Amino acid sequence: MQTIIAIVGGTGAEGSGLALRFAQAGARVRIGSRSLEKAQQTARHVGEQASGHTNPDAVAPAGVVILTVPLSAQVDTLKSIRGSIAPGAILVDATVPLEVAIGGRVSRTLTLWDGSAAQQAARLLPGVPVVAAFHALSAEALARLDHPLDCDALICGDSAEAKAVVSQLAQMIPGVRAIDAGPLDNARLLENAAALLISLNLRHKAKDSGMRITGL
Amino acid sequence: MQTIIAIVGGTGAEGSGLALRFAQAGARVRIGSRSLEKAQQTARHVGEQASGHTNPDAVAPAGVVILTVPLSAQVDTLKSIRGSIAPGAILVDATVPLEVAIGGRVSRTLTLWDGSAAQQAARLLPGVPVVAAFHALSAEALARLDHPLDCDALICGDSAEAKAVVSQLAQMIPGVRAIDAGPLDNARLLENAAALLISLNLRHKAKDSGMRITGL
Repeated sequence: MQTIIAIVGGTGAEGSGLALRFAQAGARVRIGSRSLEKAQQTARHVGEQASGHTNPDAVAPAGVVILTVPLSAQVDTLKSIRGSIAPGAILVDATVPLEVAIGGRVSRTLTLWDGSAAQQAARLLPGVPVVAAFHALSAEALARLDHPLDCDALICGDSAEAKAVVSQLAQMIPGVRAIDAGPLDNARLLENAAALLISLNLRHKAKDSGMRITGL
Repeated sequence: MQTIIAIVGGTGAEGSGLALRFAQAGARVRIGSRSLEKAQQTARHVGEQASGHTNPDAVAPAGVVILTVPLSAQVDTLKSIRGSIAPGAILVDATVPLEVAIGGRVSRTLTLWDGSAAQQAARLLPGVPVVAAFHALSAEALARLDHPLDCDALICGDSAEAKAVVSQLAQMIPGVRAIDAGPLDNARLLENAAALLISLNLRHKAKDSGMRITGL
């Protein structure tokens, strides 16, 4: 059976960009939002592979739940969906702990007590395999469906099986190579790499910088 | 007049790799070490463009001082050379604050009080323009003189002039593109990106992974 993908925070730029790409590749995508109306609006934009729901409804039948919300919304959103996540489902956290959450800069990160946003998610979702991924895929680049991306998807987590599933998802996106980046403990490195790209975008007036790892 | 480059910690893998590349490009390189004998030995290996010195002697006539030492040696080394750095000289800090300095892992970083190793260097060298660079250039790749590198050199610092000098140095190395990565405040992002590459090398049994920024 085909995996159902829920994208929580799916009306944002990153979430809807991922939704467009997964739908393009033939996946069923459930757009989640606090607002049912906005979720349905984004789903119509994504196309017939997509449907719009409130966040808890979006995740209930999903095998993979992708979280694409700002840090300021991460904890509350996880609390709102944790009762609805199906047994065996994977949580993919793409949160970048940007300082902007406390009024600071979009190019700086906060140090979280758990070490990373993904580890914070794992603490809030005991028993759910958490994978950190997709931080560095440019929303702008995702939305340009006629162009392949030019970047690698670094993926970390403590479950090899969950990482394999997420790697397959990543490689549904043209131009993306999935790279295993180790245990969830490494998530802070991926989150900081995303902040680095945001900083480079600002400095160089770019919108879709990406990262390729050479030599692997 | 040609810039004289001092490489402090120049007998290590990263320092001697940089020395080889700068000498290959025709620069005068002064290898610094705590041990004069080791410095001279490395200088002979690098070739006639290079000379070996104790660290304070290496830096005295240099326009650019590149620091390539482990975190555990960074503070003491900076204290040992700060009285010898010429007025107007630039300090390039390539220190990666790896947890191995306190017996931990080579793929994890420590959070320093100053925010980054480069900012720590700047605090210890008041008045000296400090640039963070060269963390992510693989020592293995640098040493293979017949192969160009396949990576970008991300450079940050608070002096645009100093960054321009270091960018020119970086681009003396075949295959390297220099990218301005903003103020010194961003150095922790570059240091963490280097730790990410170390982690990927370990996981994928590679020795010379690098990083390219796409879309710029």
